[in-house]
Amino acid sequence: MITSSSNARVKLIRALLHERKARQDARLWCLEGVRLLEEALDAHLQPLFVLYASERLTNPRAAALLARLRSQQIVCEEARAQVLDAVSATTTAAGIMAVAPWPPPRPFAADGLLLILDGLSDPGNLGTVLRTALAAGCVGVLLAPGSVDEYNPKVVRSAMGAHLRLPLRRLETWQEAAAVVADRRVWLADAHGEMLYDAVDWRTPAALIIGSEAAGASADARRLAAGAVKIPIAQAESLNAAAAAAVFCFEAARQRRHRDQPNPPRV
Amino acid sequence: MITSSSNARVKLIRALLHERKARQDARLWCLEGVRLLEEALDAHLQPLFVLYASERLTNPRAAALLARLRSQQIVCEEARAQVLDAVSATTTAAGIMAVAPWPPPRPFAADGLLLILDGLSDPGNLGTVLRTALAAGCVGVLLAPGSVDEYNPKVVRSAMGAHLRLPLRRLETWQEAAAVVADRRVWLADAHGEMLYDAVDWRTPAALIIGSEAAGASADARRLAAGAVKIPIAQAESLNAAAAAAVFCFEAARQRRHRDQPNPPRV
Repeated sequence: MITSSSNARVKLIRALLHERKARQDARLWCLEGVRLLEEALDAHLQPLFVLYASERLTNPRAAALLARLRSQQIVCEEARAQVLDAVSATTTAAGIMAVAPWPPPRPFAADGLLLILDGLSDPGNLGTVLRTALAAGCVGVLLAPGSVDEYNPKVVRSAMGAHLRLPLRRLETWQEAAAVVADRRVWLADAHGEMLYDAVDWRTPAALIIGSEAAGASADARRLAAGAVKIPIAQAESLNAAAAAAVFCFEAARQRRHRDQPNPPRV
Repeated sequence: MITSSSNARVKLIRALLHERKARQDARLWCLEGVRLLEEALDAHLQPLFVLYASERLTNPRAAALLARLRSQQIVCEEARAQVLDAVSATTTAAGIMAVAPWPPPRPFAADGLLLILDGLSDPGNLGTVLRTALAAGCVGVLLAPGSVDEYNPKVVRSAMGAHLRLPLRRLETWQEAAAVVADRRVWLADAHGEMLYDAVDWRTPAALIIGSEAAGASADARRLAAGAVKIPIAQAESLNAAAAAAVFCFEAARQRRHRDQPNPPRV
């Protein structure tokens, strides 16, 4: 039973939750909560160790998860709930936390829509975009230089497990992006774009660059794009980046769904 | 020059930013930042008073705003930046804060899409939905009982001024909702809905109920709806409520845009 926050495992979790450099040096992240850990096991991601507080894990689902972790010889150590609270990214810790390696890189499918996020700085927004991209069936997400760390705990929380299933790659340079999108038509999301978002044919391999809300797209992003595409909006000056991503991704999904069939009659 | 956070105006701002009851009893809210205050004046909302820190307002736009406020005989009092920081909802205050009455109620246009938000509890999500609804040209938003306070400072920040332009109404009971939507077809957003979201005809007067992510739609919401409509999703179990709202609102906008014209050829 861990009773002190100076325990080495607790200190590692605290560093991974609070310091980007700690995450990057070790290539580790912290997973909080029963559901995210279930999804990690489903995705064959093996935690290095798990800390848990029994008093917070009283339901059968949590008990089943602990049994499953132990059956895989994963170290599960009990800790005082207050110790977990003291390091958690949330006010009250979920009752179970794990340290795991970053998921291995996965290839992007050739067909479909690839998102390129340029300088997104809000962690909640990035997490929501990852969750949305997975739900819309996008092939994956490229994070351009300058984006918020995808393993920031606020990103992890709002992504709801997308890290485990969505191909995701961080770029060191924009030159890398050019190589990755060589066989795609690249569009730039831009409130002043010349094309309407639903006038673009998203049924062929495409990539879409979504810039930061504050700064817009970078010069590198503009160079990579063959054209700019807009969502027509009424009154407001702009959309939240995650809302814009949802509109684009589901327009692409809608077109692909109707690719080989006429639109159904509306009711 | 206000130098103490025990100043009465500072104390009122602190109460309005931190206590829902203070906002509701006084029917006041706090507006932070140059842009939001500009929009308030554009919308003819008259602040009761303004506090500002000169050292944070060094650009011409801020100076023009102060001049405009003063020309309207609005009390503008200088305060130490640290005093504003101490009460602000953000770490570093914007340099200008105002207290204003809630915008007066505005009627909902008869045609178009009305959103009904049922039990949304995340302030950032609610603010994003308001901003998105305005951008998509929705007729307004009804807040069902149990939703987070629309004047919570996190809602205000992420709504980016939508409070000032989007008709918005909080319901005390679900009976009120029935009266408001009497002339609309009411849909419930539901991951298990029988209709696809793009198979619904959004070109006629409609309302859409979006429930909380955690609890789903309430029994009251289900009774009000004539049918349930879903966004088909791949893999992930659900969408963030604000992302789902964006997909619905812009599908409605898209259909209305194409109402009297054939779809353009895609490129």
